[in-house]
Amino acid sequence: LRSSGSNSAKTLSRRPIGVFDSGLGGLTVVREIRRQLPHESVVYFGDIARLPYGIKSKQQILSFSIQNTLFLLKKKIKALVIACNSSSSAAFPFLKNHFNLAVVDVIQPAAEEAVKISNGSRIGVIATQATIQSGSYEKAIKKRNPKARIFSSACPLFVPLVEEGWLNHPITDEIIEHYLQPLRKQRIDTLILGCTHYPLLKERIRKIMKNGIPIVDSAQPTVRQLASLLEKKAISYPSNHKGSLKIFVSDLPRNFKRIGERFLGEKLHNLEIVREK
Amino acid sequence: LRSSGSNSAKTLSRRPIGVFDSGLGGLTVVREIRRQLPHESVVYFGDIARLPYGIKSKQQILSFSIQNTLFLLKKKIKALVIACNSSSSAAFPFLKNHFNLAVVDVIQPAAEEAVKISNGSRIGVIATQATIQSGSYEKAIKKRNPKARIFSSACPLFVPLVEEGWLNHPITDEIIEHYLQPLRKQRIDTLILGCTHYPLLKERIRKIMKNGIPIVDSAQPTVRQLASLLEKKAISYPSNHKGSLKIFVSDLPRNFKRIGERFLGEKLHNLEIVREK
Repeated sequence: LRSSGSNSAKTLSRRPIGVFDSGLGGLTVVREIRRQLPHESVVYFGDIARLPYGIKSKQQILSFSIQNTLFLLKKKIKALVIACNSSSSAAFPFLKNHFNLAVVDVIQPAAEEAVKISNGSRIGVIATQATIQSGSYEKAIKKRNPKARIFSSACPLFVPLVEEGWLNHPITDEIIEHYLQPLRKQRIDTLILGCTHYPLLKERIRKIMKNGIPIVDSAQPTVRQLASLLEKKAISYPSNHKGSLKIFVSDLPRNFKRIGERFLGEKLHNLEIVREK
Repeated sequence: LRSSGSNSAKTLSRRPIGVFDSGLGGLTVVREIRRQLPHESVVYFGDIARLPYGIKSKQQILSFSIQNTLFLLKKKIKALVIACNSSSSAAFPFLKNHFNLAVVDVIQPAAEEAVKISNGSRIGVIATQATIQSGSYEKAIKKRNPKARIFSSACPLFVPLVEEGWLNHPITDEIIEHYLQPLRKQRIDTLILGCTHYPLLKERIRKIMKNGIPIVDSAQPTVRQLASLLEKKAISYPSNHKGSLKIFVSDLPRNFKRIGERFLGEKLHNLEIVREK
């Protein structure tokens, strides 16, 4: 009995890339995959039924992340992007070590990018409570630049504000000011948006920071890292076909399609609800 | 083979009351059970792993609610309180019709109370998106007073604000003002707090409404209704013993114990985490 090389690079190359997030914020990463890697197909899973992850325990987020990965493995993916910072901080080492799969998270690439562009190595990080408490950004940055100083702030109200659609609301500005003032006072020279929801607030954050420092969001560096991993493993899509996109969600309440389209930057087609049994 | 009347009133009476909520907000109802019915024991389930319910679909909330009820049935409860407005609106008829169990929700009692005390039958309701969209309060009020007019406002940021602990924050006041101004303009004469998180904002809401109208929260009328149901079925606890309280949660992140104690008004002892397998 031969398994006939079913995991050979040649066989793998035509398979889709799996991406998961607690909700639809990870579609900001999918958008970037479609821009940088238009030939690749994507299967996305958004765990809307159990979102948000960022206020839950590490053990719980790890368990959700494993379930999401198993779901995507059944879709025969060739690589996995953990497009959720809370999951990346709770589950990246586990998924990378225990699954026979190319895995990219969103924290390592953002940390690398921030270290590369930071002038004075005073790096600010804003993220959910789970991500901040995990210390994952701190570790990822220190590994690349032991002298860097990291200043972080958990911003638990940003996700609900984005979900509520208050992107240009004066109250949102006040809340941004509240969370970012301590970082501005620390004279950070680079700011990492450590949650895939936050890019929708990027322009408001830039305006309120006033100091013109670079703002790093994970999407671009993550997809660059994905691209080089696919290349290294020789599993990039071999021809010029237009990649497809299939989106699975564990629930779909009324507002979420509208929010999802804002993240993805295109209409949400090909959407399927998979409920827990 | 006889089942020996294991569900007789006498056997049932010593069993605990089951209470569930998406999180710990339902502890405001437990607090009231312990005040009004100190002899009764309570088993509580807070589905923290999957909270919040109020932004999810009706079908999803129904499915979570059934799972929670099955969990509590294994704890041999004699009656069930759905201490969550989103679950009450999505699951009360189903649970009442399909389980052989005394079931109380939080919407019917609050609606009844509001109809009783409203002077001019202009009743305001604030709640989560799921509860407002369900129209459950509207139906429950109209059933009792067909002439009543109902004005409702979904307040999706209130739960995250309470979870964040911003109970007396100026930004919270602004958000309260934002959501309640339309109701004040409609000259409502009674306001229902249609979410078990909102009682923690009651005093701020009262102050911002300015008009001194009565504010109804579900806890008191719900427990009054529970008491009369137990009496009617002759399953009230038969003696003067001090009721116990056992709390199960599906996750327990760092902050939640503190928030839970604020809802319950006493220390959280006897807490157990039950994770999804």
